[in-house]
Amino acid sequence: MNNAWVLNRRPIGYPKESDFKWIESPLPELDEGEILIEAHYLSLDPYMRGRMNDSKSYAPSIKLGGVITGEVVGKVIKSKSKLFNEGDYATAHIGWQKYGKIDAISARKIDSELAPISTSLGILGMPGLTAYFGFLDVCSPKPGETVVVSASSGAVGAIVGQIAKLMGCKVIGIAGSDIKTDYCLDELGFDFVINYKSDNILSKISEYAPYGVDIYFDNVGGEISDNVISNLSVGARIAVCGQISLYNLEENENGPRIGSSLLINQASMTGFLVFQFKSRYHEGLTKLSQWLIEGKIKYKEDIVSGIENAPSTFIGMMKGKNFGKLLIKIV
Amino acid sequence: MNNAWVLNRRPIGYPKESDFKWIESPLPELDEGEILIEAHYLSLDPYMRGRMNDSKSYAPSIKLGGVITGEVVGKVIKSKSKLFNEGDYATAHIGWQKYGKIDAISARKIDSELAPISTSLGILGMPGLTAYFGFLDVCSPKPGETVVVSASSGAVGAIVGQIAKLMGCKVIGIAGSDIKTDYCLDELGFDFVINYKSDNILSKISEYAPYGVDIYFDNVGGEISDNVISNLSVGARIAVCGQISLYNLEENENGPRIGSSLLINQASMTGFLVFQFKSRYHEGLTKLSQWLIEGKIKYKEDIVSGIENAPSTFIGMMKGKNFGKLLIKIV
Repeated sequence: MNNAWVLNRRPIGYPKESDFKWIESPLPELDEGEILIEAHYLSLDPYMRGRMNDSKSYAPSIKLGGVITGEVVGKVIKSKSKLFNEGDYATAHIGWQKYGKIDAISARKIDSELAPISTSLGILGMPGLTAYFGFLDVCSPKPGETVVVSASSGAVGAIVGQIAKLMGCKVIGIAGSDIKTDYCLDELGFDFVINYKSDNILSKISEYAPYGVDIYFDNVGGEISDNVISNLSVGARIAVCGQISLYNLEENENGPRIGSSLLINQASMTGFLVFQFKSRYHEGLTKLSQWLIEGKIKYKEDIVSGIENAPSTFIGMMKGKNFGKLLIKIV
Repeated sequence: MNNAWVLNRRPIGYPKESDFKWIESPLPELDEGEILIEAHYLSLDPYMRGRMNDSKSYAPSIKLGGVITGEVVGKVIKSKSKLFNEGDYATAHIGWQKYGKIDAISARKIDSELAPISTSLGILGMPGLTAYFGFLDVCSPKPGETVVVSASSGAVGAIVGQIAKLMGCKVIGIAGSDIKTDYCLDELGFDFVINYKSDNILSKISEYAPYGVDIYFDNVGGEISDNVISNLSVGARIAVCGQISLYNLEENENGPRIGSSLLINQASMTGFLVFQFKSRYHEGLTKLSQWLIEGKIKYKEDIVSGIENAPSTFIGMMKGKNFGKLLIKIV
């Protein structure tokens, strides 16, 4: 038998556990070209919140009663495709469930010898690629530039900051607890880190970036970003990767208009999705694997056991409770 | 004797005539390398409002008692430079005054045979170059794309819309009176024009751009822009050229946050100044002159006689009273 979390109600504001429903169903039959995956880890990511709404976005909404969107890594336990043998490991977007079938061409084969398979959902997966292309391509960093990254101990932010250090930039992180800021400073080697819950962000940014912020890699939006954007340098680039502070608002929020900041600083602000760089994933994964093997980039996972805990863990992430790449261990 | 308008008080909100002061002074003596210009036309432009404030911007503020910033075109009546002969025509940033001296290398020689000299402050000057580089370089238009331009009968907007038509784009203008919208439709050949004072901007944008706005060339900011930005297409580009609706606010205004729009549409918003393209002015002027001579681009001037009228005319421009490139005729 299979089990899955489906959307019971569209959340209003922060999701509640009653917005999710646990269902049981038979294992699916495979058609030609398909594989059946036994999920070992499920990735929990902020973008999932957007899919639970009914509003227009870059991807379709989850239907009421539909399995919650998500990527897993696991073992191929049946294959009707030449691309996979039983026993292979793969990542696939099968959602929040124990087992799922998928067209083999939509799955990505994982080398389980290279690194723990969980990394294929983090540093060697979407978060790593998002950091790699979002920082290097969207932000075009130059050595010596000052980079600010928000949610800097998170799955994407921690990698962005480390790549920025590798590129010779000065890195200022922003995170929400002393444990997280210490981690960014002591483990990841950032130059400065701001605790947005206890520090005055605006004065800290001015102190740490006296010549202005050259690059802002934004995972959060809202007031934190207002403070960074009010201190841009001439020619600054902002990459909009996520806006987690806004995902659970019941109404669109107003904030300071930023047109004048962009104008007087000849600055740009660019929204991006990792899918834009699909044709270059191989390049990104090769480079990230190399840095990982050489010990130049570290990663931190926050693993919660039991798929039954997925909704409460997801809700906690929306409030910043996770520390590192959040994964549900299923098997 | 010389006469000039100087800054008497820093304006709060909309400028008042008492913020300006009319002074008389002797003609300046020339140093080696300098020229003396008799101003024939003075250009009035929205950016001047920002220079009257004391706040940080891309250029220094006007000092209290200092001549108001501005570009003129006129005749060289004395020269201590090999670059100019007496009788030559030139543009120069000498400010709101009848005569001014300047380093010859900072002046631009004008071919008074090519077109009326007033065009060197409009279509063949900063506004033309701003439209040319801001649209072609910042927005990277492709044939068939849908372009929205605000202040579309103004000095820059009218040129942007016409270049967009030349590039095979669909052009939607936004202007503030029926005379202006008719001009954009009938004379400039735009596809659609919205009257922001009488139309529902949001519903008109949706009607005229059913697949979303690919390019937004923004001269105004504020609520007009909010409506355009809420209807972007995937991959949209926004060029921030001016934010005239905000220049006379006593306090920074809040508006809808735009991070999410940029993110879900993989869109970018870029502030620019024409000075960024200084090394390519020759290219821009050559192309604009060619289009002008071939009759492919039209221009409209709004000429007010008498430098004594500069402050009241400038204040009127801030409220949208001009129609076309605003010039003060001095001689």
